[in-house]
Amino acid sequence: MKFRRSERLIDMTNYLLEHPRELVPLTYFAEKYESAKSSISEDLGIIKETFEQRGIGILQTVPGAAGGVRFSVNVHQEEAIRLIHDLCSIMESPDRLLPGGYLYMNDILGNPAILKNVGRIIASAFAKAEIDAVMTVATKGIPIAYAVAGFLNVPVVIVRRDPKVTEGSTVSINYVSGSSKRIQTMVLSKRSLSEGSRVLIVDDFMKAGGTINGMVDLLQEFNAAVAGIAVLVESVDTEERLVDDYVSLVRLSNVDLKDKKIDVSQGNYFN
Amino acid sequence: MKFRRSERLIDMTNYLLEHPRELVPLTYFAEKYESAKSSISEDLGIIKETFEQRGIGILQTVPGAAGGVRFSVNVHQEEAIRLIHDLCSIMESPDRLLPGGYLYMNDILGNPAILKNVGRIIASAFAKAEIDAVMTVATKGIPIAYAVAGFLNVPVVIVRRDPKVTEGSTVSINYVSGSSKRIQTMVLSKRSLSEGSRVLIVDDFMKAGGTINGMVDLLQEFNAAVAGIAVLVESVDTEERLVDDYVSLVRLSNVDLKDKKIDVSQGNYFN
Repeated sequence: MKFRRSERLIDMTNYLLEHPRELVPLTYFAEKYESAKSSISEDLGIIKETFEQRGIGILQTVPGAAGGVRFSVNVHQEEAIRLIHDLCSIMESPDRLLPGGYLYMNDILGNPAILKNVGRIIASAFAKAEIDAVMTVATKGIPIAYAVAGFLNVPVVIVRRDPKVTEGSTVSINYVSGSSKRIQTMVLSKRSLSEGSRVLIVDDFMKAGGTINGMVDLLQEFNAAVAGIAVLVESVDTEERLVDDYVSLVRLSNVDLKDKKIDVSQGNYFN
Repeated sequence: MKFRRSERLIDMTNYLLEHPRELVPLTYFAEKYESAKSSISEDLGIIKETFEQRGIGILQTVPGAAGGVRFSVNVHQEEAIRLIHDLCSIMESPDRLLPGGYLYMNDILGNPAILKNVGRIIASAFAKAEIDAVMTVATKGIPIAYAVAGFLNVPVVIVRRDPKVTEGSTVSINYVSGSSKRIQTMVLSKRSLSEGSRVLIVDDFMKAGGTINGMVDLLQEFNAAVAGIAVLVESVDTEERLVDDYVSLVRLSNVDLKDKKIDVSQGNYFN
Protein backbone atom coordinates (compact mmCIF):
# COMPACT_ATOMS: atom_id res chain seq x y z
CA MET A 1 0.00 0.00 0.00
CA LYS A 2 1.40 3.37 -1.02
CA PHE A 3 1.37 6.28 1.40
CA ARG A 4 0.73 9.92 0.79
CA ARG A 5 3.27 12.40 2.17
CA SER A 6 0.92 13.53 4.94
CA GLU A 7 0.50 9.95 6.16
CA ARG A 8 4.24 9.32 5.95
CA LEU A 9 4.96 12.40 8.03
CA ILE A 10 2.57 11.27 10.77
CA ASP A 11 3.82 7.68 10.86
CA MET A 12 7.50 8.69 10.67
CA THR A 13 7.04 11.19 13.49
CA ASN A 14 5.57 8.43 15.65
CA TYR A 15 8.34 6.02 14.69
CA LEU A 16 11.17 8.45 15.42
CA LEU A 17 9.68 9.48 18.77
CA GLU A 18 9.40 5.79 19.69
CA HIS A 19 12.99 5.03 18.72
CA PRO A 20 15.22 7.76 20.17
CA ARG A 21 18.98 7.56 19.56
CA GLU A 22 18.53 4.72 17.08
CA LEU A 23 20.10 5.03 13.65
CA VAL A 24 17.24 4.49 11.19
CA PRO A 25 18.42 3.90 7.60
CA LEU A 26 16.58 5.80 4.87
CA THR A 27 15.91 2.46 3.16
CA TYR A 28 13.83 1.40 6.19
CA PHE A 29 11.33 4.18 5.51
CA ALA A 30 11.64 3.86 1.74
CA GLU A 31 10.64 0.19 1.90
CA LYS A 32 7.98 0.71 4.55
CA TYR A 33 6.18 3.32 2.44
CA GLU A 34 7.24 2.09 -1.02
CA SER A 35 8.62 5.53 -1.74
CA ALA A 36 11.75 6.87 -3.39
CA LYS A 37 14.64 7.72 -1.08
CA SER A 38 14.52 11.28 -2.39
CA SER A 39 10.92 11.65 -1.14
CA ILE A 40 11.88 10.19 2.25
CA SER A 41 14.78 12.64 2.40
CA GLU A 42 12.40 15.52 1.78
CA ASP A 43 10.01 14.21 4.45
CA LEU A 44 12.83 14.00 6.97
CA GLY A 45 13.88 17.56 6.13
CA ILE A 46 10.40 18.80 7.06
CA ILE A 47 10.35 16.70 10.24
CA LYS A 48 13.83 17.90 11.23
CA GLU A 49 12.85 21.54 10.87
CA THR A 50 9.59 21.14 12.78
CA PHE A 51 11.23 19.10 15.57
CA GLU A 52 13.85 21.81 16.05
CA GLN A 53 11.47 24.75 15.86
CA ARG A 54 8.97 23.22 18.30
CA GLY A 55 11.59 22.03 20.80
CA ILE A 56 10.78 18.36 20.22
CA GLY A 57 14.32 17.34 19.44
CA ILE A 58 17.17 17.05 16.98
CA LEU A 59 17.20 14.89 13.85
CA GLN A 60 20.78 14.12 13.00
CA THR A 61 21.57 12.97 9.46
CA VAL A 62 24.35 10.42 9.12
CA PRO A 63 25.52 10.37 5.47
CA GLY A 64 26.85 7.41 3.51
CA ALA A 65 25.84 3.84 2.78
CA ALA A 66 25.56 2.91 6.45
CA GLY A 67 23.85 6.21 7.22
CA GLY A 68 20.38 7.29 8.16
CA VAL A 69 18.74 9.55 10.70
CA ARG A 70 18.94 9.58 14.47
CA PHE A 71 16.46 11.39 16.73
CA SER A 72 17.53 12.83 20.08
CA VAL A 73 15.28 14.60 22.49
CA ASN A 74 16.19 18.25 23.06
CA VAL A 75 14.23 20.64 25.23
CA HIS A 76 14.68 24.33 24.51
CA GLN A 77 16.29 26.17 27.42
CA GLU A 78 13.28 28.49 27.89
CA GLU A 79 10.88 25.54 27.99
CA ALA A 80 13.03 23.74 30.56
CA ILE A 81 13.07 26.89 32.71
CA ARG A 82 9.29 27.17 32.46
CA LEU A 83 8.78 23.48 33.35
CA ILE A 84 11.14 23.62 36.33
CA HIS A 85 9.58 26.88 37.47
CA ASP A 86 6.17 25.16 37.49
CA LEU A 87 7.66 22.23 39.40
CA CYS A 88 9.17 24.58 42.00
CA SER A 89 5.75 26.16 42.57
CA ILE A 90 4.24 22.72 43.16
CA MET A 91 7.06 21.76 45.52
CA GLU A 92 7.08 24.81 47.74
CA SER A 93 3.54 24.23 49.00
CA PRO A 94 3.79 24.16 52.83
CA ASP A 95 1.43 21.18 53.16
CA ARG A 96 4.22 18.99 51.77
CA LEU A 97 6.13 19.32 55.04
CA LEU A 98 6.32 16.06 56.98
CA PRO A 99 7.60 15.49 60.53
CA GLY A 100 11.40 15.60 60.54
CA GLY A 101 11.55 18.17 57.73
CA TYR A 102 10.89 15.65 54.97
CA LEU A 103 8.96 16.66 51.89
CA TYR A 104 6.00 14.66 50.57
CA MET A 105 6.84 13.94 46.95
CA ASN A 106 4.71 10.88 46.07
CA ASP A 107 2.25 12.86 43.96
CA ILE A 108 5.06 14.43 41.93
CA LEU A 109 6.92 11.13 41.45
CA GLY A 110 3.63 9.43 40.59
CA ASN A 111 2.60 11.89 37.90
CA PRO A 112 3.49 10.57 34.42
CA ALA A 113 3.27 14.01 32.76
CA ILE A 114 5.74 15.57 35.24
CA LEU A 115 8.04 12.55 34.99
CA LYS A 116 8.03 12.73 31.20
CA ASN A 117 9.22 16.33 31.39
CA VAL A 118 11.84 15.51 34.03
CA GLY A 119 13.06 12.63 31.86
CA ARG A 120 13.14 14.84 28.78
CA ILE A 121 15.15 17.56 30.52
CA ILE A 122 17.73 15.16 32.03
CA ALA A 123 18.01 13.23 28.76
CA SER A 124 18.60 16.52 26.90
CA ALA A 125 21.51 17.28 29.23
CA PHE A 126 23.13 13.94 28.37
CA ALA A 127 21.96 13.64 24.75
CA LYS A 128 25.53 13.81 23.43
CA ALA A 129 27.10 11.57 26.08
CA GLU A 130 27.88 7.92 25.44
CA ILE A 131 25.56 6.06 27.81
CA ASP A 132 24.88 2.33 28.02
CA ALA A 133 22.58 2.23 31.06
CA VAL A 134 20.80 4.35 33.66
CA MET A 135 21.29 3.28 37.27
CA THR A 136 19.29 4.16 40.37
CA VAL A 137 18.61 2.80 43.83
CA ALA A 138 15.19 1.41 44.82
CA THR A 139 12.64 2.78 45.22
CA LYS A 140 11.96 6.52 44.71
CA GLY A 141 14.57 6.94 41.98
CA ILE A 142 13.01 4.22 39.82
CA PRO A 143 10.37 6.30 38.00
CA ILE A 144 12.91 9.04 37.21
CA ALA A 145 15.42 6.48 35.95
CA TYR A 146 12.81 4.96 33.61
CA ALA A 147 11.70 8.37 32.36
CA VAL A 148 15.29 9.24 31.45
CA ALA A 149 16.10 5.79 30.03
CA GLY A 150 13.05 5.92 27.78
CA PHE A 151 14.38 9.04 26.05
CA LEU A 152 17.96 7.72 25.93
CA ASN A 153 16.82 4.25 24.80
CA VAL A 154 19.06 2.36 27.22
CA PRO A 155 18.23 -0.17 29.97
CA VAL A 156 17.62 0.66 33.62
CA VAL A 157 19.67 -1.01 36.34
CA ILE A 158 18.25 -1.02 39.86
CA VAL A 159 20.44 -1.22 42.94
CA ARG A 160 18.76 -2.67 46.05
CA ARG A 161 19.21 -2.60 49.79
CA ASP A 162 18.95 -6.39 50.11
CA PRO A 163 19.59 -9.27 47.74
CA LYS A 164 16.50 -10.83 46.18
CA VAL A 165 16.01 -14.47 45.27
CA THR A 166 14.71 -13.43 41.82
CA GLU A 167 17.93 -11.67 40.84
CA GLY A 168 20.51 -14.46 41.03
CA SER A 169 23.97 -13.84 42.42
CA THR A 170 24.75 -10.30 43.49
CA VAL A 171 27.65 -7.99 44.24
CA SER A 172 27.33 -6.16 47.52
CA ILE A 173 29.20 -3.15 48.93
CA ASN A 174 29.13 -1.17 52.13
CA TYR A 175 29.07 2.58 52.08
CA VAL A 176 28.72 5.43 54.55
CA SER A 177 25.56 7.48 54.34
CA GLY A 178 26.50 11.13 53.98
CA SER A 179 24.18 12.61 56.61
CA SER A 180 23.84 9.96 59.32
CA LYS A 181 27.39 8.56 58.87
CA ARG A 182 25.94 5.07 59.24
CA ILE A 183 27.34 2.06 57.41
CA GLN A 184 24.83 0.81 54.86
CA THR A 185 24.73 -1.89 52.22
CA MET A 186 23.71 -1.87 48.58
CA VAL A 187 23.59 -4.83 46.20
CA LEU A 188 23.37 -5.27 42.47
CA SER A 189 22.54 -8.42 40.55
CA LYS A 190 25.67 -9.59 38.71
CA ARG A 191 23.78 -10.06 35.46
CA SER A 192 22.29 -6.56 35.60
CA LEU A 193 25.28 -4.72 34.22
CA SER A 194 27.94 -5.70 31.65
CA GLU A 195 31.62 -4.96 32.29
CA GLY A 196 32.81 -1.68 30.85
CA SER A 197 29.37 -0.06 30.68
CA ARG A 198 29.08 3.71 30.76
CA VAL A 199 26.41 4.51 33.32
CA LEU A 200 24.28 7.54 34.07
CA ILE A 201 23.43 7.59 37.79
CA VAL A 202 20.01 9.08 38.57
CA ASP A 203 18.21 9.69 41.86
CA ASP A 204 15.26 11.63 43.22
CA PHE A 205 17.03 13.39 46.06
CA MET A 206 20.60 14.18 47.07
CA LYS A 207 21.69 15.64 50.38
CA ALA A 208 25.35 14.92 51.17
CA GLY A 209 25.53 12.43 48.32
CA GLY A 210 26.36 9.27 50.29
CA THR A 211 23.97 7.07 48.35
CA ILE A 212 25.21 8.35 45.01
CA ASN A 213 28.78 7.86 46.18
CA GLY A 214 27.83 4.28 47.04
CA MET A 215 26.57 3.76 43.48
CA VAL A 216 29.85 5.18 42.13
CA ASP A 217 31.76 2.64 44.26
CA LEU A 218 29.47 -0.16 43.12
CA LEU A 219 30.21 0.72 39.48
CA GLN A 220 33.91 0.07 40.13
CA GLU A 221 33.05 -3.49 41.15
CA PHE A 222 31.60 -3.94 37.66
CA ASN A 223 34.49 -2.17 35.94
CA ALA A 224 31.88 0.28 34.76
CA ALA A 225 32.32 4.03 34.35
CA VAL A 226 30.26 6.97 35.55
CA ALA A 227 28.94 8.75 32.46
CA GLY A 228 27.07 11.33 34.53
CA ILE A 229 25.05 11.99 37.67
CA ALA A 230 21.62 13.64 37.71
CA VAL A 231 19.21 14.29 40.57
CA LEU A 232 15.73 15.77 40.60
CA VAL A 233 16.21 17.60 43.91
CA GLU A 234 19.39 18.59 45.72
CA SER A 235 19.29 19.88 49.25
CA VAL A 236 21.89 22.56 49.96
CA ASP A 237 21.28 22.07 53.67
CA THR A 238 24.32 19.83 54.14
CA GLU A 239 27.73 20.20 55.80
CA GLU A 240 29.79 18.37 53.25
CA ARG A 241 29.00 17.43 49.66
CA LEU A 242 30.56 14.09 48.71
CA VAL A 243 29.73 14.42 45.00
CA ASP A 244 31.04 17.25 42.80
CA ASP A 245 30.02 16.77 39.24
CA TYR A 246 26.25 16.40 38.96
CA VAL A 247 23.20 17.93 37.35
CA SER A 248 20.25 18.98 39.55
CA LEU A 249 16.91 20.29 38.33
CA VAL A 250 15.64 21.71 41.62
CA ARG A 251 17.44 23.07 44.66
CA LEU A 252 15.95 22.93 48.15
CA SER A 253 17.56 25.46 50.43
CA ASN A 254 15.58 26.20 53.52
CA VAL A 255 13.10 23.88 55.14
CA ASP A 256 11.57 25.73 58.07
CA LEU A 257 9.25 23.42 59.99
CA LYS A 258 8.24 26.09 62.49
CA ASP A 259 7.18 28.74 60.00
CA LYS A 260 6.05 26.13 57.47
CA LYS A 261 8.22 27.53 54.72
CA ILE A 262 10.25 25.80 52.02
CA ASP A 263 12.64 27.53 49.65
CA VAL A 264 12.76 25.89 46.26
CA SER A 265 14.68 27.23 43.27
CA GLN A 266 16.05 25.98 39.98
CA GLY A 267 19.02 23.62 40.12
CA ASN A 268 22.47 23.82 38.56
CA TYR A 269 21.09 22.50 35.23
CA PHE A 270 20.66 26.12 34.25
CA ASN A 271 24.10 27.36 35.32
CA MET B 1 4.18 32.34 12.95
CA LYS B 2 1.97 30.49 10.52
CA PHE B 3 2.44 26.78 9.95
CA ARG B 4 2.20 24.74 6.81
CA ARG B 5 0.00 21.64 6.89
CA SER B 6 3.01 19.29 6.92
CA GLU B 7 4.44 21.05 9.98
CA ARG B 8 1.06 21.02 11.71
CA LEU B 9 0.68 17.28 11.12
CA ILE B 10 4.10 16.57 12.70
CA ASP B 11 3.58 18.83 15.69
CA MET B 12 -0.02 17.66 16.28
CA THR B 13 1.07 14.03 16.12
CA ASN B 14 3.70 14.71 18.78
CA TYR B 15 1.21 16.63 20.92
CA LEU B 16 -1.50 13.96 20.76
CA LEU B 17 0.97 11.14 21.55
CA GLU B 18 2.19 13.14 24.54
CA HIS B 19 -1.34 13.78 25.86
CA PRO B 20 -3.25 10.49 25.71
CA ARG B 21 -6.86 10.44 26.89
CA GLU B 22 -6.93 14.22 27.18
CA LEU B 23 -9.72 16.11 25.46
CA VAL B 24 -7.98 18.67 23.23
CA PRO B 25 -10.31 21.40 21.88
CA LEU B 26 -9.98 22.23 18.19
CA THR B 27 -9.47 25.85 19.20
CA TYR B 28 -6.26 24.85 20.99
CA PHE B 29 -4.71 23.78 17.70
CA ALA B 30 -6.38 26.57 15.71
CA GLU B 31 -4.80 29.19 17.97
CA LYS B 32 -1.44 27.43 18.22
CA TYR B 33 -1.05 27.35 14.44
CA GLU B 34 -3.13 30.44 13.57
CA SER B 35 -5.23 28.29 11.29
CA ALA B 36 -8.93 27.97 10.55
CA LYS B 37 -10.82 25.31 12.46
CA SER B 38 -11.78 23.70 9.15
CA SER B 39 -8.09 23.17 8.30
CA ILE B 40 -7.45 21.71 11.75
CA SER B 41 -10.42 19.41 11.26
CA GLU B 42 -8.97 18.19 7.99
CA ASP B 43 -5.55 17.65 9.60
CA LEU B 44 -7.14 15.61 12.37
CA GLY B 45 -8.99 13.50 9.81
CA ILE B 46 -5.67 12.56 8.19
CA ILE B 47 -4.07 11.85 11.58
CA LYS B 48 -7.06 9.76 12.67
CA GLU B 49 -6.89 7.60 9.56
CA THR B 50 -3.13 7.10 9.77
CA PHE B 51 -3.23 6.34 13.52
CA GLU B 52 -5.87 3.68 12.94
CA GLN B 53 -4.25 2.12 9.89
CA ARG B 54 -0.80 1.91 11.48
CA GLY B 55 -2.03 0.61 14.83
CA ILE B 56 -0.94 3.72 16.71
CA GLY B 57 -4.29 4.40 18.30
CA ILE B 58 -7.76 5.84 18.06
CA LEU B 59 -8.62 9.51 17.66
CA GLN B 60 -12.08 10.07 19.03
CA THR B 61 -13.95 13.20 17.97
CA VAL B 62 -16.20 14.78 20.59
CA PRO B 63 -18.64 17.14 18.85
CA GLY B 64 -20.11 20.36 20.20
CA ALA B 65 -18.88 23.55 21.83
CA ALA B 66 -17.08 21.69 24.63
CA GLY B 67 -15.78 19.15 22.14
CA GLY B 68 -12.45 18.29 20.62
CA VAL B 69 -10.35 15.21 20.01
CA ARG B 70 -9.10 12.54 22.36
CA PHE B 71 -6.28 10.12 21.56
CA SER B 72 -6.22 6.61 23.02
CA VAL B 73 -3.54 4.04 22.42
CA ASN B 74 -4.77 0.94 20.59
CA VAL B 75 -2.55 -1.91 19.52
CA HIS B 76 -3.83 -4.09 16.68
CA GLN B 77 -4.48 -7.66 17.80
CA GLU B 78 -1.94 -9.12 15.34
CA GLU B 79 0.77 -6.72 16.52
CA ALA B 80 0.07 -7.59 20.17
CA ILE B 81 0.34 -11.29 19.32
CA ARG B 82 3.65 -10.70 17.53
CA LEU B 83 5.05 -8.63 20.43
CA ILE B 84 4.02 -11.20 23.05
CA HIS B 85 5.35 -14.02 20.91
CA ASP B 86 8.73 -12.26 20.80
CA LEU B 87 8.59 -11.76 24.58
CA CYS B 88 7.82 -15.47 25.12
CA SER B 89 10.90 -16.42 23.06
CA ILE B 90 13.04 -14.15 25.23
CA MET B 91 11.55 -15.58 28.41
CA GLU B 92 11.89 -19.27 27.66
CA SER B 93 15.68 -19.14 27.46
CA PRO B 94 16.94 -21.78 29.96
CA ASP B 95 19.70 -19.55 31.34
CA ARG B 96 16.97 -17.49 33.06
CA LEU B 97 16.45 -20.29 35.55
CA LEU B 98 17.56 -19.40 39.07
CA PRO B 99 17.84 -21.66 42.12
CA GLY B 100 14.37 -22.40 43.49
CA GLY B 101 12.75 -22.28 40.06
CA TYR B 102 12.68 -18.47 39.87
CA LEU B 103 13.10 -16.73 36.55
CA TYR B 104 15.61 -13.94 36.00
CA MET B 105 13.57 -11.03 34.62
CA ASN B 106 15.69 -7.93 35.38
CA ASP B 107 16.79 -7.45 31.78
CA ILE B 108 13.19 -7.61 30.53
CA LEU B 109 11.87 -5.26 33.24
CA GLY B 110 14.81 -2.93 32.63
CA ASN B 111 14.31 -2.62 28.88
CA PRO B 112 12.38 0.56 28.01
CA ALA B 113 11.39 -0.66 24.53
CA ILE B 114 9.84 -3.88 25.90
CA LEU B 115 8.15 -1.96 28.72
CA LYS B 116 6.69 0.54 26.27
CA ASN B 117 5.08 -2.32 24.36
CA VAL B 118 3.83 -4.00 27.54
CA GLY B 119 2.38 -0.67 28.67
CA ARG B 120 0.76 -0.11 25.28
CA ILE B 121 -0.86 -3.55 25.24
CA ILE B 122 -2.22 -3.33 28.80
CA ALA B 123 -3.41 0.25 28.25
CA SER B 124 -5.21 -0.87 25.07
CA ALA B 125 -7.08 -3.51 27.08
CA PHE B 126 -8.34 -0.82 29.48
CA ALA B 127 -8.61 2.08 27.03
CA LYS B 128 -12.37 2.31 27.47
CA ALA B 129 -12.42 1.77 31.25
CA GLU B 130 -12.78 4.63 33.68
CA ILE B 131 -9.47 4.68 35.53
CA ASP B 132 -8.15 7.28 37.99
CA ALA B 133 -4.89 5.61 39.03
CA VAL B 134 -2.63 2.63 38.47
CA MET B 135 -1.52 0.79 41.61
CA THR B 136 1.34 -1.64 42.14
CA VAL B 137 3.52 -2.97 44.93
CA ALA B 138 7.24 -2.14 45.19
CA THR B 139 9.48 -2.96 43.48
CA LYS B 140 9.28 -5.11 40.34
CA GLY B 141 5.81 -3.95 39.38
CA ILE B 142 6.85 -0.29 39.35
CA PRO B 143 8.20 -0.06 35.77
CA ILE B 144 5.14 -1.83 34.38
CA ALA B 145 2.80 0.42 36.33
CA TYR B 146 4.53 3.54 34.96
CA ALA B 147 4.51 2.18 31.41
CA VAL B 148 0.74 1.61 31.63
CA ALA B 149 0.03 4.89 33.45
CA GLY B 150 1.93 6.87 30.82
CA PHE B 151 -0.46 5.65 28.11
CA LEU B 152 -3.55 6.08 30.32
CA ASN B 153 -2.38 9.48 31.59
CA VAL B 154 -3.17 8.77 35.25
CA PRO B 155 -0.96 8.78 38.37
CA VAL B 156 0.86 5.76 39.79
CA VAL B 157 0.30 4.72 43.39
CA ILE B 158 2.95 2.51 45.00
CA VAL B 159 2.17 0.15 47.87
CA ARG B 160 5.13 -0.70 50.12
CA ARG B 161 6.13 -3.44 52.54
CA ASP B 162 7.14 -0.93 55.27
CA PRO B 163 6.10 2.63 56.05
CA LYS B 164 8.59 5.30 54.99
CA VAL B 165 9.28 8.57 56.76
CA THR B 166 8.97 10.44 53.45
CA GLU B 167 5.38 9.36 52.86
CA GLY B 168 3.56 10.75 55.88
CA SER B 169 0.86 8.78 57.64
CA THR B 170 -0.04 5.44 56.14
CA VAL B 171 -2.77 2.82 56.12
CA SER B 172 -1.52 -0.69 56.74
CA ILE B 173 -3.17 -4.08 56.23
CA ASN B 174 -2.22 -7.69 56.78
CA TYR B 175 -2.81 -10.28 54.11
CA VAL B 176 -2.00 -13.93 53.52
CA SER B 177 0.45 -14.68 50.74
CA GLY B 178 -1.14 -17.16 48.38
CA SER B 179 1.73 -19.65 48.07
CA SER B 180 3.49 -19.59 51.43
CA LYS B 181 0.36 -18.89 53.49
CA ARG B 182 2.39 -16.47 55.58
CA ILE B 183 0.91 -13.32 57.08
CA GLN B 184 2.43 -10.26 55.42
CA THR B 185 1.93 -6.53 55.63
CA MET B 186 1.46 -3.84 53.02
CA VAL B 187 1.15 -0.10 53.56
CA LEU B 188 0.00 2.84 51.50
CA SER B 189 0.54 6.51 52.19
CA LYS B 190 -2.80 8.10 53.08
CA ARG B 191 -2.24 10.99 50.70
CA SER B 192 -1.43 8.70 47.78
CA LEU B 193 -4.99 7.87 46.81
CA SER B 194 -8.22 9.89 46.95
CA GLU B 195 -11.43 8.32 48.21
CA GLY B 196 -13.61 6.83 45.53
CA SER B 197 -10.82 6.37 43.00
CA ARG B 198 -11.16 3.71 40.31
CA VAL B 199 -7.88 1.83 40.30
CA LEU B 200 -6.16 -0.48 37.84
CA ILE B 201 -3.96 -2.96 39.76
CA VAL B 202 -0.80 -3.97 37.88
CA ASP B 203 2.00 -6.39 38.79
CA ASP B 204 4.87 -8.21 37.14
CA PHE B 205 4.06 -11.71 38.35
CA MET B 206 1.07 -13.56 39.78
CA LYS B 207 1.10 -17.05 41.20
CA ALA B 208 -1.80 -17.69 43.58
CA GLY B 209 -2.65 -14.00 43.64
CA GLY B 210 -2.13 -13.28 47.36
CA THR B 211 -0.34 -9.98 46.77
CA ILE B 212 -2.96 -8.78 44.32
CA ASN B 213 -5.67 -9.84 46.74
CA GLY B 214 -3.88 -7.76 49.38
CA MET B 215 -4.02 -4.73 47.10
CA VAL B 216 -7.75 -5.33 46.53
CA ASP B 217 -8.25 -5.33 50.32
CA LEU B 218 -6.14 -2.21 50.69
CA LEU B 219 -8.34 -0.40 48.15
CA GLN B 220 -11.34 -1.02 50.40
CA GLU B 221 -9.60 0.92 53.18
CA PHE B 222 -9.53 3.90 50.79
CA ASN B 223 -13.11 3.36 49.62
CA ALA B 224 -11.61 2.91 46.21
CA ALA B 225 -12.77 0.47 43.53
CA VAL B 226 -10.92 -2.08 41.43
CA ALA B 227 -11.21 -0.98 37.81
CA GLY B 228 -9.14 -3.91 36.57
CA ILE B 229 -6.21 -6.23 37.25
CA ALA B 230 -3.35 -6.85 34.83
CA VAL B 231 -0.16 -8.88 35.19
CA LEU B 232 2.75 -9.38 32.86
CA VAL B 233 3.28 -13.04 33.80
CA GLU B 234 0.93 -15.51 35.43
CA SER B 235 2.16 -18.84 36.65
CA VAL B 236 -0.38 -21.64 36.23
CA ASP B 237 1.66 -23.77 38.61
CA THR B 238 -0.56 -23.03 41.61
CA GLU B 239 -3.07 -24.98 43.67
CA GLU B 240 -5.62 -22.29 44.17
CA ARG B 241 -6.10 -19.01 42.33
CA LEU B 242 -7.33 -16.24 44.64
CA VAL B 243 -8.06 -13.77 41.84
CA ASP B 244 -10.56 -14.44 39.06
CA ASP B 245 -10.91 -11.49 36.80
CA TYR B 246 -7.52 -10.41 35.43
CA VAL B 247 -5.61 -9.87 32.22
CA SER B 248 -2.28 -11.65 31.72
CA LEU B 249 0.09 -11.17 28.80
CA VAL B 250 2.26 -14.23 29.34
CA ARG B 251 1.57 -17.60 30.94
CA LEU B 252 4.28 -19.67 32.60
CA SER B 253 3.27 -23.31 32.85
CA ASN B 254 6.13 -25.66 33.46
CA VAL B 255 9.40 -24.74 35.11
CA ASP B 256 11.61 -27.82 35.02
CA LEU B 257 14.83 -27.16 36.91
CA LYS B 258 16.28 -30.59 36.21
CA ASP B 259 15.85 -30.55 32.44
CA LYS B 260 16.31 -26.76 32.28
CA LYS B 261 13.07 -26.21 30.46
CA ILE B 262 10.48 -23.44 30.80
CA ASP B 263 7.12 -23.42 29.06
CA VAL B 264 5.97 -19.92 28.18
CA SER B 265 2.87 -19.12 26.15
CA GLN B 266 0.57 -16.18 25.53
CA GLY B 267 -1.68 -15.11 28.39
CA ASN B 268 -5.44 -14.72 28.62
CA TYR B 269 -5.25 -11.27 26.97
CA PHE B 270 -5.83 -13.07 23.68
CA ASN B 271 -8.76 -15.25 24.81
